[in-house]
Amino acid sequence: MKVIVLRLSHRIERDKRLTTHVALASRALGADGIIISGERDEGVLKSITDVSKRWGGDFKVEYRKEWKTVLREYKKKGFELIHLTMYGLPYQDKISKIRKSKKNKLVIVGSEKVNPEVYHSADYNLSVTQQPHSEVAALALFLHDFFKGKELNKKFNKPKIKVIPQAIGKKTIKSD
Amino acid sequence: MKVIVLRLSHRIERDKRLTTHVALASRALGADGIIISGERDEGVLKSITDVSKRWGGDFKVEYRKEWKTVLREYKKKGFELIHLTMYGLPYQDKISKIRKSKKNKLVIVGSEKVNPEVYHSADYNLSVTQQPHSEVAALALFLHDFFKGKELNKKFNKPKIKVIPQAIGKKTIKSD
Repeated sequence: MKVIVLRLSHRIERDKRLTTHVALASRALGADGIIISGERDEGVLKSITDVSKRWGGDFKVEYRKEWKTVLREYKKKGFELIHLTMYGLPYQDKISKIRKSKKNKLVIVGSEKVNPEVYHSADYNLSVTQQPHSEVAALALFLHDFFKGKELNKKFNKPKIKVIPQAIGKKTIKSD
Repeated sequence: MKVIVLRLSHRIERDKRLTTHVALASRALGADGIIISGERDEGVLKSITDVSKRWGGDFKVEYRKEWKTVLREYKKKGFELIHLTMYGLPYQDKISKIRKSKKNKLVIVGSEKVNPEVYHSADYNLSVTQQPHSEVAALALFLHDFFKGKELNKKFNKPKIKVIPQAIGKKTIKSD
């Protein structure tokens, strides 16, 4: 099963670092790729691609100006569209149903104002708490519970750099 | 038991939005407060305080220029110091031990370069995956697993605004 994240309406100036965090968290927590919509941001695209090259794995990054066409296309492809929003139904009540369905998933995370069409296109509008906080945190909890924590042990193939966990300090292995 | 988050070395220009996300995720996911060290950023402090006033609860925000004195002070007060870093030991191996200890917790999240003193002062240096991603995501997973998901049902007292979860669209109740 594929899990792709869609980042809505990126704005270079404002969202640069947050979109990078959304993408890197997606990668680290087991998603297969991210589609970034909105403004084209070479810096963000490059930094995610660079991380993937150095740290391994097959994470895909794609830029698509219009989120609307992404939603329609992925719906047609049979993906389940899951929109994370503080206004939706508690995700913990739906996650096991979503996990059981064999459909690929498109997990949608917003920026500031989300167009009503997103709510209407989504198969699920789900909240991670009903409090204002962070799309990075919401996405992280969703992926973690979706994958039941198994994503924490994900192996990334062909890394050039790898962390060796330490009680104190930093240890990495590098190879070329 | 108290859980306080310490954000290291905030820089106004670069970290404005990420520190806000760290703070709001801390609040939404059950922490009692946050201490922000580094540059004093009135905008960030105000936006977190404003969210707490509108959305309820007793989340405390504090600014402290020097993280070093915070570490020493909280250690003296008997808090357990838990530093989240991609170089640490897998958090999932330590979380039940940490949960069982009755000590208050100071959960430390970094910005770019973390001083070695933090690693040496911490009772635990813990990684949330050994991949580069996001302090917001790492903190979210740590808190979620620490609280065993019970934080998702946390009630925030005296809210002026509250979300009523919906399958589609947005519904809030406001009061003054």
